[in-house]
This record gives sequence, C-alpha cells and structure tokens, in this order.
Amino acid sequence: MALLFRSDIDSPAWWGDELRALVPDLDFRVWPDTGAVAEIDTALVWRPEPGLLAGLPGLKAIFSLGAGVDHIFADPDLPVGVPVTRVVDADMTGRMTEYVLFHVLRRHLRHDEYRDQQARGEWRELAHPAAAERRVGVMGLGVLGGAAARALADLGFDVAGYSRRARDMPGIDRFHGADGLEPFLNRTEILVCLLPLTAATAGILDERLFDALPDGAWLINVARGNHLVEDDLLAALASGRLAGATLDVFADEPLPASHPFWPHPAITITPHIAAISDPRSIAKQVAENITRLRDGRALINVVDPGAGY
Amino acid sequence: MALLFRSDIDSPAWWGDELRALVPDLDFRVWPDTGAVAEIDTALVWRPEPGLLAGLPGLKAIFSLGAGVDHIFADPDLPVGVPVTRVVDADMTGRMTEYVLFHVLRRHLRHDEYRDQQARGEWRELAHPAAAERRVGVMGLGVLGGAAARALADLGFDVAGYSRRARDMPGIDRFHGADGLEPFLNRTEILVCLLPLTAATAGILDERLFDALPDGAWLINVARGNHLVEDDLLAALASGRLAGATLDVFADEPLPASHPFWPHPAITITPHIAAISDPRSIAKQVAENITRLRDGRALINVVDPGAGY
Repeated sequence: MALLFRSDIDSPAWWGDELRALVPDLDFRVWPDTGAVAEIDTALVWRPEPGLLAGLPGLKAIFSLGAGVDHIFADPDLPVGVPVTRVVDADMTGRMTEYVLFHVLRRHLRHDEYRDQQARGEWRELAHPAAAERRVGVMGLGVLGGAAARALADLGFDVAGYSRRARDMPGIDRFHGADGLEPFLNRTEILVCLLPLTAATAGILDERLFDALPDGAWLINVARGNHLVEDDLLAALASGRLAGATLDVFADEPLPASHPFWPHPAITITPHIAAISDPRSIAKQVAENITRLRDGRALINVVDPGAGY
Repeated sequence: MALLFRSDIDSPAWWGDELRALVPDLDFRVWPDTGAVAEIDTALVWRPEPGLLAGLPGLKAIFSLGAGVDHIFADPDLPVGVPVTRVVDADMTGRMTEYVLFHVLRRHLRHDEYRDQQARGEWRELAHPAAAERRVGVMGLGVLGGAAARALADLGFDVAGYSRRARDMPGIDRFHGADGLEPFLNRTEILVCLLPLTAATAGILDERLFDALPDGAWLINVARGNHLVEDDLLAALASGRLAGATLDVFADEPLPASHPFWPHPAITITPHIAAISDPRSIAKQVAENITRLRDGRALINVVDPGAGY
C-alpha cells in the first residue's frame, strides 16, 4: 500500500522524510512517479489535476494539505465515496485569530491615519469608539471563524456571526440562513469573511452584499479569493460604500503584477499568509489517519462531501 | 465648600456642567478665579503649577484628571497628608489593552514589512513564529499592565511580567525587584512599558536596559515620556540592539516639530492616545468621591503616596 504526494507548493523531500519518521514502513511516492497505481491507497494533495485522483482505483482516503478542500472538490471526476480529510490545526487557528484581530484593530484604532499624520509631522488625536460600540461581523463560524469571533468578543467588540445553519455562541449575536444575511450586514462596520468556498458562497462578496453594509465599512477577506467579485470591490471602494479592504487571498495567486489591487491606496495585500500551516503538525495528522486507515478505525477531520467543508 | 478645577487640556465648561449634573449644589471654580481660597476643599487637576495646591489651606482631597499622578507628585510643595486619587476606568483599560495588543501584533506579524512589499508589488511569505514562541515582556503590572499582560497571554504569547513587588498572575512568568530586571530583559523580544512614573522609574528605559535585551528587540512605551532616555533610544536603534519602537508618550508633548523622532523610520509615533479617558466615566468617579468626602466615607482610587502610584 502506498501514498501518492502531489503539490506544486510543498516540498516532497521534506514530506517524505517527515512522514517516514512517523510511519517507518510508508511507501511514499511523488507524482508523476506513481509506480503501480493499484498499490496506491492514499493521496496527500494540494490542487491535484482534475482526473488525477480518479486514476487511482485503490484509493481509500484523500488528505488535503490545507484547511480548505475546495481545490479537491473542484475536480469533476473526484471519486465518489472516498473520504476527504482537511487540516485542523490549533497553531493555524491561532495564527488566523492573530491576523483577524490585528487587521480589525488596525481599522478600529485608525492606525493608517496616525501613520500618515506622523509622515506629515502632525500631532492630532483622532476619535474612535470603545470596542463595545464597534460592530464587527464574522461570516463563517467553523473552527477558524468561531475562534476569531470568540477572540474579538473577548476583547470587548460588539460581534455578530453569520453562518448557513443556526449555531449558538455565548456573547455573539447570531444570524443564519438566507433571511439572516441582510440584517447581519446592515449592522456590520468591519466584515470578516471566513466562509468555506462552496458553490453557494463563491462570489458572495459582491455588489449586493456591499450595498447592505453601512457606508464606510471595511472588508477583511481571509477565506478564498473566489468569494470576492473583484470589480464589485473596486466599485464599492470608489463609491465610498467601503472605506477599505484587507485581502489575504486572491482568485489568482500569486496576485499578478499588473493587478489593480497592488497600487490601490485602500487595499492592503498580504500573500496568503494569514494562517500558515506548521507542516510538522499537519504531518502528524496525516500519519494519524494513515494508521487509523490501516487499523480500520474512523479517520479524523473528515469533510462532509454534501456541504463541501 | 468648593472644588477648584485646573487643567490646560480639559474644558472647564464641560467639566462644570457634567459635575453639577451629578452633584447639583457643587461650587465649581476654575483657576485662577479661586474666590475665597479657604472655601476650597477639593481640587480636580492636570499638571497643576507647583505651589498651587499648597495655597489651598482647607484642601481635603486632590483628584487627578488622569490615570497618572506623577504630574501632582512632581510638586515639591504638595501638601502632606491630603489624599490623592487617580482615574481607574474600565473603558480606558480596554483601550490600552487594544493599543498594546495591536502594536505587539504589528511587530509579531511583520505588518510593516508586508506593507513595504506591497508598495514594491512583491508577493513573498515572511516567516514568523507561533505566538507561543514569541516572548513579550510587560513592565508594570498594575491595572493597565496587568490587563495587557493577561490579554497577550490569552492570545497565546509567551508573556513575562516585571514589577517592583512580587505578584502572582497565572500563565505569566513573574520577575520582580532589582535582581529580577536583568533576567526579565534577557528573555524579552517585545518590551511593553506600563510602569508608573516615580523617582525610581524615571529614565529606566536607558542604554543599560536596552543592552540587556536580545538583539532586534522592540520597545512599546505607553507609560510616560520621562521613562525614556531619548538619546539612548536613538543609539540603540542605530546599533541594531533595538529594531524599532512604538511611542505614545514623550517628555515634551506635543512632540516638537523639530524632534528627530518624527522622521525616524524605526519609530512609530502616536499622540498620547493609547488610553484616552472617557470624561463621562471620570466625572462619575470624581462625583462619587465628592459625595464620599461629604459623607465622611473612604475615597475610591486613592494613591499610595509612598509608592507614588
């Protein structure tokens, strides 16, 4: 039995060493050197080519190298019934929380305005409300969104959460379903997108959504680039509906050099670093699932294929 | 009985209205229109002239308009035995915590470097450790320092606290006294100063202290400008001992236009806004103490004159 590794951005040498240290008898193969495909029962992948997984007849589990699995479900030929797992990592969750807190505080405390004042040698106090009077909204209340919402509420912000299904979180105003979206947006001054990318959420950050926010709102997208309709963001910034946006994810990564986001004064760009995974932690989860598969036990961090996350 | 108001930066009209709304029969007088000084039993002050308070023979309490009282104890003729109170304000504590968290995260997440990369159109991931591997040190563990240290620890940072006297705080490494300072500094990558300003702490942020920090450390001073020896900071930045500093307080405020801190690329300046007091909250505390004094009850938020805070 063998594991097939396929990623454009992760080092096969590192992964081979790390997994063999945890599962000494592992037959680790790097695509396209598959060997006999019938021997492959697990695949560890990031953005596999459509059809690649369908070509592995003995496949029993697909492991995503990241928290997202949209790159796997994008394959129209994805084998049906093979469990897909994703990374759930406390370190990654902590990093995402830090990123979200930082960029909410940056807007809340008017940091960029103070920076500009310093450049002009200007000493002037700028008013900002107490955190309790700042309304932050988090879309998506899974592991990452839930942790970010919790940390914002603990700091004293007036936090609301939006998700597809009703969920209870103490101290956080909850909105859900199609009817809940508009009232959630109407009250949200700083919007954090941490939704999974599915057919239902692709393009959700569009003109209609921006129009439901109060004037001068701020967007923080740390989910997926395809949640955002890029032209609608530029229009919302031009009209003043949005005052600014912090984007860590893009439809096309790395963001092309000619992209209008790069020089935009109201857009902050980071290169998909909000929640960097610690590969050692991911390797442990993958090794755990290889062992569970061999022992006939249930896998951890399995995705619901109906929901797509 | 009358209250004498003296401040260069607070509005006497606002304070008169606000306090009379809470204590309707209050005789509110604004310096230098003292009327008969023998009738004055309370003073509400920010940076009173030396000798001003000594000229009030019937004085029974001195109320500081801020969290600090160094501006009162700086008066060599301060009447002995008259209680001095300071502002303790949950809103102010929350704002200070937000400011400290923000500037620690800004350094931790390498935000300024990402901003510079965006200006160059550069897409490049910069490594940073997990919060658990980032050593933050908070000097001064009173109401403000204690809250900031707690919030940093809750986010997962490796937090140490330094104070004059031993204090126990769960999850925070404690150092105290003269012997504790050097080991505290040796392990601190991001140093937050929230000490009270006293004879013992004036000028504490000097060459000797910077030399005990690891190379590339970062200073955040949100206490008082006189904690810092300004030339020593410039030298520590020039040598690389310090990588940068965030300063909210200065020996001379507003910071003079010609000051070398303004254009320094490694110094971030904010105009003493880390913990803006909500004047309505302070007015309630002052009114409470006026009522307590009339009723012969113990005052709240009284300072220990021996410690100076």
